[in-house]
Amino acid sequence: MKRLLVIGIGAGDPDHLTLQAVKAIAATDVFFIVDKGEVKHELIQLRLDLIAQHSRNPYRIAEARDPERDRAAPAYTAAVEDWRSRRSLACEALIRDELGDGETGAFLVWGDPAVYDSTLAILDEILRRGHVAFDVEVIPGISSVAALTARHRIGLTQVGRPTHLTTGRRLAEQGPTADDVVVMLDAHSSFIGLDDFHIYWGAYLGTPDEILVSGPVREVGERIRRLREEARARKGWIMDTYLLRRMPPRDR
Amino acid sequence: MKRLLVIGIGAGDPDHLTLQAVKAIAATDVFFIVDKGEVKHELIQLRLDLIAQHSRNPYRIAEARDPERDRAAPAYTAAVEDWRSRRSLACEALIRDELGDGETGAFLVWGDPAVYDSTLAILDEILRRGHVAFDVEVIPGISSVAALTARHRIGLTQVGRPTHLTTGRRLAEQGPTADDVVVMLDAHSSFIGLDDFHIYWGAYLGTPDEILVSGPVREVGERIRRLREEARARKGWIMDTYLLRRMPPRDR
Repeated sequence: MKRLLVIGIGAGDPDHLTLQAVKAIAATDVFFIVDKGEVKHELIQLRLDLIAQHSRNPYRIAEARDPERDRAAPAYTAAVEDWRSRRSLACEALIRDELGDGETGAFLVWGDPAVYDSTLAILDEILRRGHVAFDVEVIPGISSVAALTARHRIGLTQVGRPTHLTTGRRLAEQGPTADDVVVMLDAHSSFIGLDDFHIYWGAYLGTPDEILVSGPVREVGERIRRLREEARARKGWIMDTYLLRRMPPRDR
Repeated sequence: MKRLLVIGIGAGDPDHLTLQAVKAIAATDVFFIVDKGEVKHELIQLRLDLIAQHSRNPYRIAEARDPERDRAAPAYTAAVEDWRSRRSLACEALIRDELGDGETGAFLVWGDPAVYDSTLAILDEILRRGHVAFDVEVIPGISSVAALTARHRIGLTQVGRPTHLTTGRRLAEQGPTADDVVVMLDAHSSFIGLDDFHIYWGAYLGTPDEILVSGPVREVGERIRRLREEARARKGWIMDTYLLRRMPPRDR
């Protein structure tokens, strides 16, 4: 039987790695890397550094090129699912050809593999097709949400109250659905105009490029939008997230 | 200046500790432990074991007795805030008397310090009173939510869709507010009757006592309620959490 580890490696700081993840890396024979192309080369290098630092045995790297995603498609979910299917075919070929029976393969996932990441769904899809068999084990990681709240020294939740996780797209369509909302994957600064909220924003969390800004949206919102655009232009990519907290709360 | 670390130590597995947390424990002079009384003695012993394993220098343990919380009070939030204020006075005395200038103190928090935990709010309250000054640094940890989804090998979120974090009390009052809802602090098995949902439940996650159950609520709900009551009676305490996922989803 083949064994696959899906290892959460934290939000950017190499010290976000758990002892469990360190042991999992040390036990891996083949690391699978799906290359998103040149722009995110820096993110791949960070993973290779972690592997080199924590491996204890000889290992192999198996790489595939990520299929292009149609970012102009009007139906976001359908476009992601189509992309995911094509990606799952590339991963299936890698697992079939590069991982032997009795060996352990691993995918290193930024943050926590459960939070807006496609790896687990891709492995499910491969298993459903039934051409390759393997066991899956998931190693939880420090999500960018946990990194964000830690760096701002705030709670994700307030006593007895809900917190909603959502996407920038949903926020733009529906507005905030609770007094406390965490927003991920927001390419359009959809927080602008939410003037009864504080925002706690962070980009490149845990890395030397980390940027943190917090304050009332009406005071810091435009600055965050500008910083975000400048940073993305400078580095070629951005990973950021934020918590919106209504002040004062409406729902007690 | 005094320095205080709030260290997330993960959901129960000693290997949930991050490298950052290991370094933070090694750098700590005084560990603050607020004792909830005999029942949770096991949880304190686990923390003392982690400290003993990862400390590199001499350290001190400073203990306070946790004030009783009025669990019969009808106003949950007010009761928690009152308890938190009394707890903050006990912690303030510890920090004032047991931690010297230039020293580093630490609170070890189960899971992630941002998720339904009072430590950060207590430190804020102490700083607002202004009788003791200190710097605060937060080390994020593997939350019980991340441990739960990893053990069940599922996503917390689905493509482009929200996930709501809430409490058992809220769920009982309002019902599920999304297709994907994580419920914490539920003493009353409030999932019973939610027959269009799957439940992914876990107790004592990451420990040798871990229990995992998943399936349609209508098929496994009663079993979870029974397991939960038996385990709590046997051990004297329970820490559990669950994800509800509507199948099929209503909100696409």
